[in-house]
Amino acid sequence: MTDFFSSLSIILVRTQLQENIGASARAMANFSLTDMTLISPRDKVLGEKAYAMSSGATNILDNAKIVDDIRDGIENLNFVLATTARQRGINKPAYALSDAIAMILEKQSQGNRCGILFGPERTGLENDDVMLADGLVHVPVSDDFSSLNISQCVLLVAYEYFCQKNQKPNYISDQPLAMKKDIDYMISHLISELDESDFFYPPEKRESSVRLISNIFSKSQLTEQEVRTMRGVIKSLSSK
Amino acid sequence: MTDFFSSLSIILVRTQLQENIGASARAMANFSLTDMTLISPRDKVLGEKAYAMSSGATNILDNAKIVDDIRDGIENLNFVLATTARQRGINKPAYALSDAIAMILEKQSQGNRCGILFGPERTGLENDDVMLADGLVHVPVSDDFSSLNISQCVLLVAYEYFCQKNQKPNYISDQPLAMKKDIDYMISHLISELDESDFFYPPEKRESSVRLISNIFSKSQLTEQEVRTMRGVIKSLSSK
Repeated sequence: MTDFFSSLSIILVRTQLQENIGASARAMANFSLTDMTLISPRDKVLGEKAYAMSSGATNILDNAKIVDDIRDGIENLNFVLATTARQRGINKPAYALSDAIAMILEKQSQGNRCGILFGPERTGLENDDVMLADGLVHVPVSDDFSSLNISQCVLLVAYEYFCQKNQKPNYISDQPLAMKKDIDYMISHLISELDESDFFYPPEKRESSVRLISNIFSKSQLTEQEVRTMRGVIKSLSSK
Repeated sequence: MTDFFSSLSIILVRTQLQENIGASARAMANFSLTDMTLISPRDKVLGEKAYAMSSGATNILDNAKIVDDIRDGIENLNFVLATTARQRGINKPAYALSDAIAMILEKQSQGNRCGILFGPERTGLENDDVMLADGLVHVPVSDDFSSLNISQCVLLVAYEYFCQKNQKPNYISDQPLAMKKDIDYMISHLISELDESDFFYPPEKRESSVRLISNIFSKSQLTEQEVRTMRGVIKSLSSK
């Protein structure tokens, strides 16, 4: 348990339904989190309901630390945030989820072990739980419909952590794009065929029409194969 | 249906379980999305299973548009992305989720209606579905555990949209993109002209060629004006 990801603990407090524990394990696995702690869950042993909902994230459930007292669950951590749905008049710093994750990554980079507390279904965390945390996390949700299931909340936290940690791979492209000269050639071919078929009328609009047509193809990130196909298309239509 | 949020359509394709439709509605409501479209769901009428899982997001289910053909589901949209779990050798731009949402917000700020396609449980979207989209969305997940339930995928998309939407200024600019039905019509016109000129030879290659040609235009983010021009181009060339 020394790798980076394992050092974000997901701590579920007094969870009532094993299904929610299983679904939370699945959400963790989706985003490479492995370290689950259960504080006084209703069922002290995880069974079929939890494992079925985990969709194969069994190693997380197998290794979940189960303790009675929340203090025992966080004793080896350095920095802990508590998820809460609403302001509670508690004098703790409160962060929107993305800011909270940024802060956790910063703490981790300084060698700290971090965790996030998730409260029981319906009631959420008690003030006595929240008191133990360094700060609060708010997942931004619609004011009109703010109820998030625990496992959904875990999913969003894990996603945000994973994304910020990995800072974005972008734009994946398969096939080689055509060279500009080949696109140019294709466009010239098209324009000359259109000239022959008296497409550009009246003549004073020719220039803007040519520009418009050229733009359609120059912006389309055509591959070599697509340019070859388009040249066949133009030839075929023109010879009808 | 004129407000900003309603213009991101969540389009569920051939969903098998009503529970997933209900859970998706709940996830949408969490993040202020309202516009759900169901393409050929297994159950044509939504019942108890969907409504129970929606946890009160009943108005989304009540107003869900249910159609058989994916083309009918996207016909009034201008920009559509398809969620896919893996690379498919399809030549479309592929975006990580956060980039995809940034692009959608930009398109919306220019007056375009946008939607995101979600495939059936297990199998995901077919190539024929994906062909109709402007690009692909990849939700970044762990390589070792990449299976996301549909409603979890909807939740992450809706969360990312909500977060980015609430931090961005909007710009109004540019020209409106064409509606999908007009692009479709243009492509059909082109294909029928190519059939007449015996372009597709040998016949067994017709299908892949049609797909290749359709893709050139579906990925090009054509404006209304560009589609009008292309239809003139096709007509002009064909009548030579």
